[in-house]
Amino acid sequence: MAKSKFEYVRNFETDDTCLRNCYIVVRLDGRNFHKFAEQHKFTKPNDDRALGLMTRSARSVMGDLEDIIIAYGQSDEFSFVFKRTSTLFKRRASKLMTHVASQFSSSYVFYWKDFFGEQPLLYPPGFDGRVVLYPTNRNLRDYLSWRQADCHINNLYNTVFWTLVQKGGLTTVQAEDRLKGTLAADKNEILFSEFDINYNNESALHKKGTTLIWEKRDETVTKRMKRPDGEEEDVPVTRSRRTVQDYHCDIIGEQFWEEHPDILEDGC
Amino acid sequence: MAKSKFEYVRNFETDDTCLRNCYIVVRLDGRNFHKFAEQHKFTKPNDDRALGLMTRSARSVMGDLEDIIIAYGQSDEFSFVFKRTSTLFKRRASKLMTHVASQFSSSYVFYWKDFFGEQPLLYPPGFDGRVVLYPTNRNLRDYLSWRQADCHINNLYNTVFWTLVQKGGLTTVQAEDRLKGTLAADKNEILFSEFDINYNNESALHKKGTTLIWEKRDETVTKRMKRPDGEEEDVPVTRSRRTVQDYHCDIIGEQFWEEHPDILEDGC
Amino acid sequence: MAKSKFEYVRNFETDDTCLRNCYIVVRLDGRNFHKFAEQHKFTKPNDDRALGLMTRSARSVMGDLEDIIIAYGQSDEFSFVFKRTSTLFKRRASKLMTHVASQFSSSYVFYWKDFFGEQPLLYPPGFDGRVVLYPTNRNLRDYLSWRQADCHINNLYNTVFWTLVQKGGLTTVQAEDRLKGTLAADKNEILFSEFDINYNNESALHKKGTTLIWEKRDETVTKRMKRPDGEEEDVPVTRSRRTVQDYHCDIIGEQFWEEHPDILEDGC
Amino acid sequence: MAKSKFEYVRNFETDDTCLRNCYIVVRLDGRNFHKFAEQHKFTKPNDDRALGLMTRSARSVMGDLEDIIIAYGQSDEFSFVFKRTSTLFKRRASKLMTHVASQFSSSYVFYWKDFFGEQPLLYPPGFDGRVVLYPTNRNLRDYLSWRQADCHINNLYNTVFWTLVQKGGLTTVQAEDRLKGTLAADKNEILFSEFDINYNNESALHKKGTTLIWEKRDETVTKRMKRPDGEEEDVPVTRSRRTVQDYHCDIIGEQFWEEHPDILEDGC
Repeated sequence: MAKSKFEYVRNFETDDTCLRNCYIVVRLDGRNFHKFAEQHKFTKPNDDRALGLMTRSARSVMGDLEDIIIAYGQSDEFSFVFKRTSTLFKRRASKLMTHVASQFSSSYVFYWKDFFGEQPLLYPPGFDGRVVLYPTNRNLRDYLSWRQADCHINNLYNTVFWTLVQKGGLTTVQAEDRLKGTLAADKNEILFSEFDINYNNESALHKKGTTLIWEKRDETVTKRMKRPDGEEEDVPVTRSRRTVQDYHCDIIGEQFWEEHPDILEDGC
Repeated sequence: MAKSKFEYVRNFETDDTCLRNCYIVVRLDGRNFHKFAEQHKFTKPNDDRALGLMTRSARSVMGDLEDIIIAYGQSDEFSFVFKRTSTLFKRRASKLMTHVASQFSSSYVFYWKDFFGEQPLLYPPGFDGRVVLYPTNRNLRDYLSWRQADCHINNLYNTVFWTLVQKGGLTTVQAEDRLKGTLAADKNEILFSEFDINYNNESALHKKGTTLIWEKRDETVTKRMKRPDGEEEDVPVTRSRRTVQDYHCDIIGEQFWEEHPDILEDGC
Repeated sequence: MAKSKFEYVRNFETDDTCLRNCYIVVRLDGRNFHKFAEQHKFTKPNDDRALGLMTRSARSVMGDLEDIIIAYGQSDEFSFVFKRTSTLFKRRASKLMTHVASQFSSSYVFYWKDFFGEQPLLYPPGFDGRVVLYPTNRNLRDYLSWRQADCHINNLYNTVFWTLVQKGGLTTVQAEDRLKGTLAADKNEILFSEFDINYNNESALHKKGTTLIWEKRDETVTKRMKRPDGEEEDVPVTRSRRTVQDYHCDIIGEQFWEEHPDILEDGC
Repeated sequence: MAKSKFEYVRNFETDDTCLRNCYIVVRLDGRNFHKFAEQHKFTKPNDDRALGLMTRSARSVMGDLEDIIIAYGQSDEFSFVFKRTSTLFKRRASKLMTHVASQFSSSYVFYWKDFFGEQPLLYPPGFDGRVVLYPTNRNLRDYLSWRQADCHINNLYNTVFWTLVQKGGLTTVQAEDRLKGTLAADKNEILFSEFDINYNNESALHKKGTTLIWEKRDETVTKRMKRPDGEEEDVPVTRSRRTVQDYHCDIIGEQFWEEHPDILEDGC
């Protein structure tokens, strides 16, 4: 069979290696998730089942690709950060982003039932992705801060909007009009004075999104060992295991990074 | 909230627009599918449930992205060809390939049950993807020929190999040794003289893989219409509908392309 | 010396191979050539010395890089087209464009005296470059047509503008005002009715720019050869030599391409 | 004229913006400079006229592009480093590298006479270029160290090689054989014991290459100023001016960078 005759077409592939020594960020965004959320009756302004499923899918991606040092998600998006020295898939952008998109999407369907129970998934959802490189720790932290600031802004808006609709009896058009031109302080004030809601007391998950990092946890396991006298006995052994932990805290300020100094590498 | 302070990080995204007037091919490959196939007890050398699920997932991708003019799949891979004039996602390579990878993967899990019935999916599978551009019709056809030639070569090998093992009683090591250095003719001969199998009569699905294209089909539907006398009656109406059709035929030679002259555009 | 310790920095280079089977166009543009033209007293609207020097420099580039199949220049720009199958510099965009920019620029200074005689070159001029790929013959021809249409539009404007100034006694501001909003027909009419100039009779070099292509020319040279009787004699020998020919003709229509069918390859 | 009909070809240009916040290095290499050096009778192992001309041309590039913070040259190569925050040419790689290649090449011909006097330049020389990005100060310094280590290795080799030929009477083949497998220490020893040459005392220009940086220098100029009584008088005025300074010192160790703390930006 004339295999070789056609094989020249391989040379049309182009190299898309990511610049060395930069953080590689893959961000996924849900496709048409407004419609998807409606069709699947997501509660407003936040659906904890949906957020839980996003986080579960992100854990699946992190478990699969250990070079991801931190992931951050909110609403229908999730960002995955590969360590700057990663050589996974030879740093090929296409491999990295398609693998993340694929693993996340198959996990989303796979774990759907764990979060939505008997409510059926109506059709397979889609996520699109992109790759962005950040050369310095400052740039990377600013990227994550940008996403968390976005989470805050959207959540404050959505919280007031849906409170006006659900508790205030406004139509969605009226709620939109009411919020036009308001600042954060105005929105806090509406919540507080009209609905007796202190935004600060709202769920951290909704206000801050979800941050996933690897952490070493000590585990005590029992191991059967031989004593000097030849007898065997059960001995408790402590060992360290890397697991993915989730946080719903501020990652814009210094505290989080001071408490987890191992996430970012010294870039020199 | 200091949103604007962080927003500069958007400028680190780089443009990955595909060159205009070229066919855009997105190819997906199953990740660790050898292991996946074993764990899910795929029959050897071909598992028709698995091939059916691949094709079902590819249909889901085509239904979602109408600029795909042809798709070709075999084993655990599928290639999707976007028309050369497509402006979908502004021709951004990252969007195109992650969307295909995501939609295919979520569909694979979503439709699993339709093909594997009660046999459970053990974990969410992964597919990685890549984008390749082809400037001419010849180049594109050579790409598809390359994949179909690959299908043939692998299927012939696998057919003989598993026949030697399953019917000939050889171990896998012995079968491998037996086939070392053999040509296509030798393999055909082994099948024919030792096992009375004519390879030409084997399943076209296995020998040729699956080609998906859009086709217009006439449909007759019944429509209730008003007659001049004011009465209503049921009238049969013929309308043309674009649907995805699958073929398991040769796409290397001229015949398929002559029978479907609308697939490839005239590139000038 | 710790050479190896630093050599890792080589891996930061990224691949910029041009897509196969596409025409590679490198276009150069003079940097700050308005100012350069003034400082070197270029005649208006066209300076034949400057145009001659541009063409001489382009010939130097073509002589150096034989994969260039056609070059087109006008004003302070020149485009060089590499054949679609070229493997020069492994099709690396950076190598191709810097080499063209470098060779053109050093030639411009080197041959300055041949065109400007005693008028000194005041400082080393600069040209910047870019690479653009074209997948089909139509696209490539449209690129060249675009440049020649640009030449025509600019030359017609400049011819009328400078005639109004030089013969009509207008200031440059007045001439600009006079031409605001005029169409090609209006400009032709001004030339004809006010200055008795038929634009069609203007120099083809100015109206059409310069097209350079390789042509085979037969040459007769005298060679000293040995006769059967052992004596030597001078024999005229005809041999074919590839040389760069320049044209100042229309390259938008079909005629030029029909007369030179070898320039463009059949792309299939 | 149907300009618009062709203008679509502009969209085939692709974006090649350099990643933000990285140092942009453009390196030029002489093309076929072995042959060029021979044809122009460069002295061996180093020709100070040629090195002077390289440096003069590099100064011309730096004068033209003020975002270049440091340049390093040796033999027939020169590297130019743009500051990490540069927005010159919108960071388009093609513009940056072609401009450097063009300006350097035209300068090389323009200033030839200042260094080679009556010895004519036989033809216009060529330089090719490339762009490499470095995300951190360490990476950039390692790049420059790599080039200076290369200078050292080559110069030591060439110094011994040509001493063996010129003073030792060996043929070039014999000299090559003699040096096969020798280490730096061996080469130093040959120079010292056989030719009484201490390599450490060789010219810093040859051993270390040329580093160009911007420096502020105070200049005293005389300015005519008006006195309170209305009379005018000449007054000495001190002003600071940025000029390009050249160094032939080690740039691998810390000292140079400590003495010039302003070259590298803090990347965070």
